[in-house]
Amino acid sequence: VSVDLRRMNKVEWINEKDRRICVQAGITGSDLEAWLGERGYCVGHEPDSVELSTLGGWIATNASGMKKNRYGNIEDIVENVTMISPKGIIEQVEPFARASIGFKPQNILFGSEGNLGIITKAILKIHEKPKIKKYNSVMFKNWETGVEFLYNLSRTNFIPSSVRLVDNVQFRFGQALKPRTEGLMKIKANIQKFFVLNVKGFNADEMCATTFVMEGTSSEVRYQEKNILALAKKHGGLVGGSGNGKRGYLLTFAIAYVRDFLTDFHIIGETMETTVPWSKIDEVCKAATETLFELHAKHNIPGKPYISYRIPQIYHTGVCIYFMLGMSVKNIPHSEDLFGNIEHAIRKVIMEHGGSISHHHGVGKLRKDFMDATLSDSSMELIKDMKNAHDPGNVFGIGNGIFAK
Amino acid sequence: VSVDLRRMNKVEWINEKDRRICVQAGITGSDLEAWLGERGYCVGHEPDSVELSTLGGWIATNASGMKKNRYGNIEDIVENVTMISPKGIIEQVEPFARASIGFKPQNILFGSEGNLGIITKAILKIHEKPKIKKYNSVMFKNWETGVEFLYNLSRTNFIPSSVRLVDNVQFRFGQALKPRTEGLMKIKANIQKFFVLNVKGFNADEMCATTFVMEGTSSEVRYQEKNILALAKKHGGLVGGSGNGKRGYLLTFAIAYVRDFLTDFHIIGETMETTVPWSKIDEVCKAATETLFELHAKHNIPGKPYISYRIPQIYHTGVCIYFMLGMSVKNIPHSEDLFGNIEHAIRKVIMEHGGSISHHHGVGKLRKDFMDATLSDSSMELIKDMKNAHDPGNVFGIGNGIFAK
Repeated sequence: VSVDLRRMNKVEWINEKDRRICVQAGITGSDLEAWLGERGYCVGHEPDSVELSTLGGWIATNASGMKKNRYGNIEDIVENVTMISPKGIIEQVEPFARASIGFKPQNILFGSEGNLGIITKAILKIHEKPKIKKYNSVMFKNWETGVEFLYNLSRTNFIPSSVRLVDNVQFRFGQALKPRTEGLMKIKANIQKFFVLNVKGFNADEMCATTFVMEGTSSEVRYQEKNILALAKKHGGLVGGSGNGKRGYLLTFAIAYVRDFLTDFHIIGETMETTVPWSKIDEVCKAATETLFELHAKHNIPGKPYISYRIPQIYHTGVCIYFMLGMSVKNIPHSEDLFGNIEHAIRKVIMEHGGSISHHHGVGKLRKDFMDATLSDSSMELIKDMKNAHDPGNVFGIGNGIFAK
Repeated sequence: VSVDLRRMNKVEWINEKDRRICVQAGITGSDLEAWLGERGYCVGHEPDSVELSTLGGWIATNASGMKKNRYGNIEDIVENVTMISPKGIIEQVEPFARASIGFKPQNILFGSEGNLGIITKAILKIHEKPKIKKYNSVMFKNWETGVEFLYNLSRTNFIPSSVRLVDNVQFRFGQALKPRTEGLMKIKANIQKFFVLNVKGFNADEMCATTFVMEGTSSEVRYQEKNILALAKKHGGLVGGSGNGKRGYLLTFAIAYVRDFLTDFHIIGETMETTVPWSKIDEVCKAATETLFELHAKHNIPGKPYISYRIPQIYHTGVCIYFMLGMSVKNIPHSEDLFGNIEHAIRKVIMEHGGSISHHHGVGKLRKDFMDATLSDSSMELIKDMKNAHDPGNVFGIGNGIFAK
């Protein structure tokens, strides 16, 4: 079954006192935020794909938003899901802030990836639109220092809505995209650059950048910024200002389009993401990079492969790492298959070194081979038992995740 | 199947860098915190029953801790559960901070209430023990003002580890339990009392109290306290100081023992708890109180019934309300059945007015009749399908929640 729900995109009701909204599943992130924005509210869920992706898709894939530190990931945002399954309607009678009700069928719907039914609507938390939204950025002399800064930030009470660390390759890419600054501004920018590269012993080939989005009341934002910058300075960070921060944040929205863009230049590009415990970050990055270079050489692919990574999310026990891979495939036969194999090999290495199957992209068909390294056999059997009993005719036979052939 | 796991109470490993601990399910909260405390860490899960209840029980009942604002409820704390089910071992291969892996069998184990298998161990988040722990309290002139204060607090970034509002009845009970203060202290206490009751127009029969536990670095605690007190003053609150706050917090640990204590005096007492959206708090409290008095009169029970309530937890979209009920049952035949019926009637009224079946006690057998008002039929069928397929012999036949007869 494949159903387009884009016309089911209405807001059914809003309850301002209880900070809830009930929305049909076909609404896109942009439309939802626009509707709420007019009324002074937001949901705050901003995946890279916010302009294209829909509420139902977020739930089905267990999506993550860039500002999850303030608003939560999709499972934190949703208080009730309605799914039409082969046997009827799966939903709670009422949403609740938190409850102990025995088994929670709602919990099963996140990440269901179309295998069990169609999500038709959901009740979400809403927030007053933050009074202040402020960007900033800090440069660190190398990746390791940036990671150490994030680690120490992760145990504080001043984690901003979004914080991300980009590696040197992405940092330079971002700098290259800077709008040309003229006159006095240009002089100032050059002075800053000189200062960063020469005076403080920063090396342009090693430095990396952290960008922040801070939201809230002016007092909240002030508290966050003051403490973030103080912590950054302890790690030798140089404040880059709001221009770098905003550009870094907005750049990520381009990701949903970047693959098509690269294809025009005979470059195959893809993003890969994973969750990694703090102690394994360097290991995973190194292993992924080495594997890409090894396979690139082994298959005699021309030029140099491109790999860069960033940490777009921090958690108490680990982070999400987001890789961007690319290579020129002009005149390479079956280049997509080859690239697919390389990606598969990199995922294997990532997981062997402590990364998860996915932080927010989900499993689908592409990553089905890695479920064995994710769940125990009986865990998968439990879900299969449930699916087979509830959908004996396999009406929802899309075959994603553990149901992929 | 009923198995005592208290001897399975070992810590299997701790990973300080990744802030994780793997613990067997039979450990009690007190033992877990003692073990961690010696090493400078804590989990921070403090249900009222922390001295008696165990890790496995917390997961099976979907428990909530008093300091959930800082440490999360049990589902936020646990990153991996191992359950022995009739078909094998249900667990993730690795814990992860957050991931999108398709269906998450782990999510089903919270609130499973013994219906599916035995939880043998879990991996939990740990935190450095907070450097500072500070108590404070604020008195408000009445319940409604206290609720309004909590509502406004719930949208800030300075929510303390624990905040609770107690109604007038509980407030006076707490005051009565105060250790006698002598000499100068006594004079000071009396002056404070006079000031509260006379100068500011506070009425002893209406005022209520909010207690706070603030934890973190000195800068965190300072930020919280400064902002909390400023917000409280906007609501006409009077700062009660740390003595009231600490007593209020510690009193709640006595709850696990209070029922037995009351029985000695021919008083039947019980606690009831529910989740309520912000907009329904007054309605639910009023309806529960009226129902108790009505039924007490209808059944010609001697004396006056006791009911008091507090809000021990706040969330973005609602709160937990915790009721304490009591009545004298000297010379009343079948008093336990009668009391059970009254409790049942109150739960029904609570839910009709917008409360949930339970915030953290779970369903068990006592509240089985209210599952129909909690989940859609197909939701329950989905879980039953899963259970029947995975445990066809009903080995785990304890019959809780939707499986209760």
